[in-house]
Amino acid sequence: MAARLGIIAGDGDLPRQVAEACRRGGRPFFIIALEGRGAEAWLAPDMPHAIHRMGAAGAMLERLRAEGVTEIVLAGGVRRPSLIDLRPDWYATRFFARLGLKALGDDGLLRAVAGLLEEEGFKVVAVQSLIADLLTPDGVLTSTVPDEQGLADIAHGLSVARALGVVDVGQAVVVQQGLVLGVEAIEGTDALIARCAALRREGPGPVLVKCAKPGQDRRLDLPTIGPDTVAACVAGGYAGIAVEAGGTLFVGREAGVAAADAVGLWIKGVAP
Amino acid sequence: MAARLGIIAGDGDLPRQVAEACRRGGRPFFIIALEGRGAEAWLAPDMPHAIHRMGAAGAMLERLRAEGVTEIVLAGGVRRPSLIDLRPDWYATRFFARLGLKALGDDGLLRAVAGLLEEEGFKVVAVQSLIADLLTPDGVLTSTVPDEQGLADIAHGLSVARALGVVDVGQAVVVQQGLVLGVEAIEGTDALIARCAALRREGPGPVLVKCAKPGQDRRLDLPTIGPDTVAACVAGGYAGIAVEAGGTLFVGREAGVAAADAVGLWIKGVAP
Repeated sequence: MAARLGIIAGDGDLPRQVAEACRRGGRPFFIIALEGRGAEAWLAPDMPHAIHRMGAAGAMLERLRAEGVTEIVLAGGVRRPSLIDLRPDWYATRFFARLGLKALGDDGLLRAVAGLLEEEGFKVVAVQSLIADLLTPDGVLTSTVPDEQGLADIAHGLSVARALGVVDVGQAVVVQQGLVLGVEAIEGTDALIARCAALRREGPGPVLVKCAKPGQDRRLDLPTIGPDTVAACVAGGYAGIAVEAGGTLFVGREAGVAAADAVGLWIKGVAP
Repeated sequence: MAARLGIIAGDGDLPRQVAEACRRGGRPFFIIALEGRGAEAWLAPDMPHAIHRMGAAGAMLERLRAEGVTEIVLAGGVRRPSLIDLRPDWYATRFFARLGLKALGDDGLLRAVAGLLEEEGFKVVAVQSLIADLLTPDGVLTSTVPDEQGLADIAHGLSVARALGVVDVGQAVVVQQGLVLGVEAIEGTDALIARCAALRREGPGPVLVKCAKPGQDRRLDLPTIGPDTVAACVAGGYAGIAVEAGGTLFVGREAGVAAADAVGLWIKGVAP
């Protein structure tokens, strides 16, 4: 029997899907839901879980051990709060003290968290190793394909997204007709999509480009799109969505592609 | 007597200041105001001028020649509209055709415009060569100085801004406590400041960092701050503003520094 899986549940539907997959496969699991990230809405009484605030690192580790968890998955994005909002416990405080006052992006922080979990004797596994078909495949997924302008916007967006990734800033860029309308930092992709819709020019619509950061640990918080992303792009009059094949998660792919096909939006997985 | 100066007037107060400086110095000038960029509000009947839409490149060049202009300054930022909004005339169409479908940032486009003006026999001069004390000097300009967190946020913001500049995206970044809250693309610095104010964490306030792009032509549209920038940062609870010394313009510096001093916001010129 597979080891008991600890699911650290961040934003979105992904943590629930991991729990469902465990249940279908008969794998034991235990959910640590981060307070206020939305898991409260889908956590059922028959799903073994505890809710902790993000700063309560010591209590979380203790609970995971007490529940016999040996493998851990970090599922769903988690934006880093300020240290004050975090209210770190003694364990989290020691962790941050060790990191020092270094400027850490989300990714740098996640890497540090994963390193810590492994030091504590847990094995950190990737969410895409637990749910089939989660990674975006290479190629166009929709019935509409990008035209010449779309392909040029994809290429430009990728170059900008990679430059940003090197300094551990966001993972998404919006390009329209060669113009970079917006770049993601901490606001999240949905806010970026809406903001750029308001900056949209006439003519062929904007393109959302999303890719992993160079050197990103593939077990941790890969860039993710889902039906909400598609719906936001449809509402904003976008031409298409390009994501890194094999390096981004497409949650709810079937529903997302169907929604895109309904309006002629294209979605393309781009090999790195 | 100095050659007649052609002032291509974009956004903000800078074009008016150039005209006033010419008048004070007895230098002849002629203003080409770009339609809808705000010059209509300050253009006085006694200022020789013409208003042209941005796409009317041929008509502008003809008028500049007819007015005996030999030197040209591009004053005030101009965000690039879509080709459709631009309605290029035959001359502008030929110009864009020569550029090709290349993805051009604002800076790439401006360089091309300057190159074209020089091909046409005009000399392109820098706005900071016409108005004294326009470049931001090195050092803290306010009575409040940045603390350790502020200095760390400046350093982080500069590294992100430079990475962005390499791909010819915006020139401004907002950092708070090591976190990049936002990155400027086409929305402009004021929109960035307001957006990041809404994403602000508790504790020490955000820092706005603005610098020139690597290899930026210093005669063209240098990053600019002014009293509006300071007012937006004050309203948004920012801790301070850091701009590249010698590579950014500070329009209305005295009023801006006074407004910052009134609330304890710091402003620092950072040597590149």
